[in-house]
Amino acid sequence: MTTGAGVIGASIFSGISMDAAAQTPASDTTRINLPPLNQPSEKKENPPPAPLGPEKKLGFALVGLGNLTLHQLMPAFGNCKYAKPVALVSGDPAKAALVASQYGIDKNSIYNYQNYDNIKNNKEIDIVYVVLPNSMHEEFTIRAAKAGKHVLCEKPMADSSQAAQRMIDACRDANRKLMIAYRIQYEPQNRMAMQWTRHNKYGKVRIIEMYNGQNIGDPSQWRLKKALAGGGSLPDIGIYCINTARFLLGEEPDWVMGNTHSTVGDNRFTEVEESALFQMHFPGGTLVNAACCYGAHESRRYRCLADNGAWFGMDPAFPYKGLKLELAEVKDGKEWKQNLSIEQRDQFALEMDHMAQCVMYDRKPFTPGEEGMQDHKIMEAIYQSAKEGKRVTMKTPTDKDAFRGVPPPEE
Amino acid sequence: MTTGAGVIGASIFSGISMDAAAQTPASDTTRINLPPLNQPSEKKENPPPAPLGPEKKLGFALVGLGNLTLHQLMPAFGNCKYAKPVALVSGDPAKAALVASQYGIDKNSIYNYQNYDNIKNNKEIDIVYVVLPNSMHEEFTIRAAKAGKHVLCEKPMADSSQAAQRMIDACRDANRKLMIAYRIQYEPQNRMAMQWTRHNKYGKVRIIEMYNGQNIGDPSQWRLKKALAGGGSLPDIGIYCINTARFLLGEEPDWVMGNTHSTVGDNRFTEVEESALFQMHFPGGTLVNAACCYGAHESRRYRCLADNGAWFGMDPAFPYKGLKLELAEVKDGKEWKQNLSIEQRDQFALEMDHMAQCVMYDRKPFTPGEEGMQDHKIMEAIYQSAKEGKRVTMKTPTDKDAFRGVPPPEE
Amino acid sequence: MTTGAGVIGASIFSGISMDAAAQTPASDTTRINLPPLNQPSEKKENPPPAPLGPEKKLGFALVGLGNLTLHQLMPAFGNCKYAKPVALVSGDPAKAALVASQYGIDKNSIYNYQNYDNIKNNKEIDIVYVVLPNSMHEEFTIRAAKAGKHVLCEKPMADSSQAAQRMIDACRDANRKLMIAYRIQYEPQNRMAMQWTRHNKYGKVRIIEMYNGQNIGDPSQWRLKKALAGGGSLPDIGIYCINTARFLLGEEPDWVMGNTHSTVGDNRFTEVEESALFQMHFPGGTLVNAACCYGAHESRRYRCLADNGAWFGMDPAFPYKGLKLELAEVKDGKEWKQNLSIEQRDQFALEMDHMAQCVMYDRKPFTPGEEGMQDHKIMEAIYQSAKEGKRVTMKTPTDKDAFRGVPPPEE
Amino acid sequence: MTTGAGVIGASIFSGISMDAAAQTPASDTTRINLPPLNQPSEKKENPPPAPLGPEKKLGFALVGLGNLTLHQLMPAFGNCKYAKPVALVSGDPAKAALVASQYGIDKNSIYNYQNYDNIKNNKEIDIVYVVLPNSMHEEFTIRAAKAGKHVLCEKPMADSSQAAQRMIDACRDANRKLMIAYRIQYEPQNRMAMQWTRHNKYGKVRIIEMYNGQNIGDPSQWRLKKALAGGGSLPDIGIYCINTARFLLGEEPDWVMGNTHSTVGDNRFTEVEESALFQMHFPGGTLVNAACCYGAHESRRYRCLADNGAWFGMDPAFPYKGLKLELAEVKDGKEWKQNLSIEQRDQFALEMDHMAQCVMYDRKPFTPGEEGMQDHKIMEAIYQSAKEGKRVTMKTPTDKDAFRGVPPPEE
Repeated sequence: MTTGAGVIGASIFSGISMDAAAQTPASDTTRINLPPLNQPSEKKENPPPAPLGPEKKLGFALVGLGNLTLHQLMPAFGNCKYAKPVALVSGDPAKAALVASQYGIDKNSIYNYQNYDNIKNNKEIDIVYVVLPNSMHEEFTIRAAKAGKHVLCEKPMADSSQAAQRMIDACRDANRKLMIAYRIQYEPQNRMAMQWTRHNKYGKVRIIEMYNGQNIGDPSQWRLKKALAGGGSLPDIGIYCINTARFLLGEEPDWVMGNTHSTVGDNRFTEVEESALFQMHFPGGTLVNAACCYGAHESRRYRCLADNGAWFGMDPAFPYKGLKLELAEVKDGKEWKQNLSIEQRDQFALEMDHMAQCVMYDRKPFTPGEEGMQDHKIMEAIYQSAKEGKRVTMKTPTDKDAFRGVPPPEE
Repeated sequence: MTTGAGVIGASIFSGISMDAAAQTPASDTTRINLPPLNQPSEKKENPPPAPLGPEKKLGFALVGLGNLTLHQLMPAFGNCKYAKPVALVSGDPAKAALVASQYGIDKNSIYNYQNYDNIKNNKEIDIVYVVLPNSMHEEFTIRAAKAGKHVLCEKPMADSSQAAQRMIDACRDANRKLMIAYRIQYEPQNRMAMQWTRHNKYGKVRIIEMYNGQNIGDPSQWRLKKALAGGGSLPDIGIYCINTARFLLGEEPDWVMGNTHSTVGDNRFTEVEESALFQMHFPGGTLVNAACCYGAHESRRYRCLADNGAWFGMDPAFPYKGLKLELAEVKDGKEWKQNLSIEQRDQFALEMDHMAQCVMYDRKPFTPGEEGMQDHKIMEAIYQSAKEGKRVTMKTPTDKDAFRGVPPPEE
Repeated sequence: MTTGAGVIGASIFSGISMDAAAQTPASDTTRINLPPLNQPSEKKENPPPAPLGPEKKLGFALVGLGNLTLHQLMPAFGNCKYAKPVALVSGDPAKAALVASQYGIDKNSIYNYQNYDNIKNNKEIDIVYVVLPNSMHEEFTIRAAKAGKHVLCEKPMADSSQAAQRMIDACRDANRKLMIAYRIQYEPQNRMAMQWTRHNKYGKVRIIEMYNGQNIGDPSQWRLKKALAGGGSLPDIGIYCINTARFLLGEEPDWVMGNTHSTVGDNRFTEVEESALFQMHFPGGTLVNAACCYGAHESRRYRCLADNGAWFGMDPAFPYKGLKLELAEVKDGKEWKQNLSIEQRDQFALEMDHMAQCVMYDRKPFTPGEEGMQDHKIMEAIYQSAKEGKRVTMKTPTDKDAFRGVPPPEE
Repeated sequence: MTTGAGVIGASIFSGISMDAAAQTPASDTTRINLPPLNQPSEKKENPPPAPLGPEKKLGFALVGLGNLTLHQLMPAFGNCKYAKPVALVSGDPAKAALVASQYGIDKNSIYNYQNYDNIKNNKEIDIVYVVLPNSMHEEFTIRAAKAGKHVLCEKPMADSSQAAQRMIDACRDANRKLMIAYRIQYEPQNRMAMQWTRHNKYGKVRIIEMYNGQNIGDPSQWRLKKALAGGGSLPDIGIYCINTARFLLGEEPDWVMGNTHSTVGDNRFTEVEESALFQMHFPGGTLVNAACCYGAHESRRYRCLADNGAWFGMDPAFPYKGLKLELAEVKDGKEWKQNLSIEQRDQFALEMDHMAQCVMYDRKPFTPGEEGMQDHKIMEAIYQSAKEGKRVTMKTPTDKDAFRGVPPPEE
């Protein structure tokens, strides 16, 4: 594992120290250049991926073997260039053994929630990926840091901003990196929308309208238990609207106003809210109108309304697969609706590779613990507004990207 | 001009008297049936339109010769089956003379704002269509009623709910019909969305998210003057979100919460708001999250999130042309995104024909004055919420479609 | 009725005399200019239509009251600026009387197929629109010319190139104009595709692939009778592929190769072909691969494959409503799929207005009889190829747009 | 490596022995069942992938390290459940060493074209994947078979049907399996289109119209050399139209007719054809109209026109990523354009996994050598037709799927 340094490409990230390294060092890019098949007027092909050999990849321990881990994360390692799975932590030893055999993980690298601290003795593990119910994030992050491991933690980071602060403190004290798994911030099409927003490509974005919803099932699942989830649709999926708006703008809201709601008689929503509607105002003048819902058919989208002849956005915006960038643009006095035809990228592979590179080159992750804590503060303000029926003012930092680290290199 | 009676087809309009006539009497349908060109498995062709002969159509006087009249309404008469233009009212005699010559209107049927009351002597005029700045609607509606003419009035109906009430009173006292030009309620694709919502075709609609915006030009136009428009984007375009949500659900909101906003330094918005974000809750449990904006690129859409395997909506939803119904539906465990390929209908022709038929058959218009007044009450509550920074509770009627008349016949 | 002269805008129509008038004379444009509602960065609004007053419009006699006339042509007059219906010719007097009453046509201007020649005494009739089964086009065109009327004739022009020649001769001898109703050549989106093709906007178009099909119904209809239609899907709908390819390129094919086919046992296709597949080569090097079918679900599309980073086309391309221009273009190394959001135009109104203007200003129609005859020659070559199982060579003119007249003014 | 047996699910593959095993044996499916997150009315989630552990996967040797291998195949192994890369064969030792290090392949498992036969001593290698210029397929397939290895060979299988026969013979004599890499036949959306076609879901498919093209670059590449490629666009990309049509229908054409063409002066096409246009007729009555082109912007699509109220197809159909199933269907008399929102699958992983399973369970591959040879016979007939300017008749087998083996299990 080496440490490198580089130059920041994207000057729009104004809060980022020039000492940090945004670019992958040359020694890492063992690219093979092949003559292009097609004419230069055709779409550009990416170079072949150049993964590090297995022995050079950083090792991840997955904590929790639920839907996300089995459906998304374990398969995503097949698309990683810098990350590999080397350990599992689960309360179900039979399931862990089966998953280990499927992905070639050593049986001796299976842990349970009790002996989890023994990971400190496992040199193969560089990074712990915490994929547990929200209220357990704090404990397993802090234990990982104490075991000397870097931590990638699922969103929402915790169940309160206080817990988030304790996680940040623990990782800082242990001199370990902490990254929150905001995959949207690493996904190329959302990144393109972010560039357009910040560079005023189509003028200033005056309004962003957003929605994230799905029709959640089994009432007994942890997502619907206040003690485990900390809230309902807002911290699980509404957080995508909050976090993505902040990412697109690089700013923090100075007021919020919102309502929460649950359908009477729907037994899924006895402890946590089904829906949240919320408005945010950002210091640069952009308004955000957003909603999330756990009780209706899946829809995940946003649209940025700009003031110089275009809107753009994503529909769908937030699912694991099938994201689509949209653009409505006036050209020669006529309106053209446009969709980008782009090779989909595995968002989880991008996110895990970013964490691996941050550890390799000693960089602050683009979405560190502070990024996650800010979402908790905003959600707490939304809950307060809903409860009191009033607009709630927030303090905002003066820097852009006040809570972010080193961006991933532009592709 | 005859008076007929019929049977109401759509029982979902529960507030409507059975005495009223929803269906066009048989004597009116002089249909020609042609053998269909194509197989029965192909899409169904409508029968040929069967317009009334020119001498039987009802005569409209257009008051105001601005963008809407010249771009949309005058051309729309070419697609009307029951309506024809017979008089013009304008402050610009040269323009009026030119328009009259283009559309074959008698020179003697040109009026100005002073001699407007003389329309009472013009037997050709059955209906007056008021297409003036909002604050002038009251005066010209009341003068029309006093002249014995029925009135079709553009939205928003007035500049306050008090003025709206005076208009309703004047027309009632003169025994004249008053209809507000809510074209969306007559447009077939929006009507299909309304049927799906009310019949729970894809389950209950739990959230409707909406947006209506455009990038308005010339700062000197009346739409940006408080005294003429009564407000900014909210009464001009935000009203489409309010009115369409009420139409889709057949209910009235029991609380609203909102904010208004104008970009600092944008000289278009010194008197009226650029944007409004607002939330509404309906007694049946549906939430509406909506926004309107005068300062960013055109976008007009809504999406109804239902709880049994689908969402549906329109994008675009509210423009004059090019409306598109969308449906995302799970079939056999897979999600299908669907668009209706349907012949576009001229919304203005449909709306003017409805008014003509209401006069012919002595029916209450589907969107009478009361329908327009309710939007004013809701907008006043949104402004109050924005001013006070608080949620505002509203009284709601117990009947469905409490303010609507006889629906147009289903096609 | 006046005669004017102008300047040809589009120099790509190289075969057209500069004496002819492509532009509408100034005296004809009594435009009203309204201040634009929206910012200049938004899509451009057309000026208000400025129809000629009813008394100045040219009068059309419709010959044949079938599907096309009742569903499309009669309603289209409502959208015409220069054309109006003044007479009907039909074998069914009751139907003709009903249609006349619906559209305000004088009862005395109803003719039947026997007394049709009396139109010569009707000063109201400037132009006859022949909308009869194909094999009757020749007779009713020639009788119209002899009655001193100009002729707009539906496609295919006739049932053979010999009949087409006789129609051309008769109109020339009577000094009357003859136009074939190729509406696609007047439709703005198809015209945009034509401009892109001829100006090599995205490089040279090397291949055009096309399809036009529908699932035809009632086996007894005239379209399925050889004696009335002259052929099957090829002359009725395959002709759109032939004619549109020729229009896009401005060239004539130098060889064709094709096959025809009918499903065994399908009683609709005992006299005429169900399907035709055909290939054409154009002197400039473009290939066309096309097919038409009467036996399967409606689909009407084409795509022009260009050699500098794009393809474009229409899907649907040929129906009466809902045409959609598509563009797949590489921008900054990425592929964008694009759709034009444009106000649909009434193709029949555009076509009838063109004919009216050609008569008003004494211009040769853009799609005169010669244009229609060329399609017959190509179809005859395709039938020959199918019969002989061989490629068939054709003679080609050296001029571009060898058979076309004065183009309609660009909008 | 075990051998299993099972039951054929899809009875539409009538040519397949019931002894063969279409389904994966139970012992192979070590599925983990997780409670579904969402309501049953939502789209169905696939179960988590259950890859075999690394030591159980079958080992592939990749022969040729060009674009396809480096961009697609090596990365695809990350998504395979049954296949892993264990050896490389290349003429460029430095490149091979680099690729080996990236993908964790033993340095001792790198071969060159001379010592290639030594693979017979490498027990890790179960299957050889031949990814060389077309004319080299024969030699390297036969050498692999002689070395006792099963062979997966890229399309087109060879440069002539004679060479194809020799490859089949060699593999049969060595008792080794031979599969041609027709990835489309393993891709779920194309398979859905195949099911609809064969089960007449929307009636009989009467016409399939197809296009496959791209704008090829560097004139010096092997694809443009007759001696290496055996032909131009037809065997490289036109073959997708031929093979997919045969797959959709399960039949073989009884006549073909075609033309080839190259743009004069385009130095890419001095040895091989730029374009081919071709028509095919199938015994069941379906017509295919197809074209391929090497000289214009990328487009890859097909549409199946059915006779009971729908068409369906794919656009794009044939690229590596981003395939999209389209359906235009009449429901309740209205036409709905529909797109399947489905998780994209890695076509190369599916194809390599199929080959691995065929070896594991001793099944005949769904696309064996005979499937590839038949495409060569059809292409030879198209070239003959183009040369002679005549329709060419072909002999057809009476069985459905006459050349195919055991289908992959339906997902």
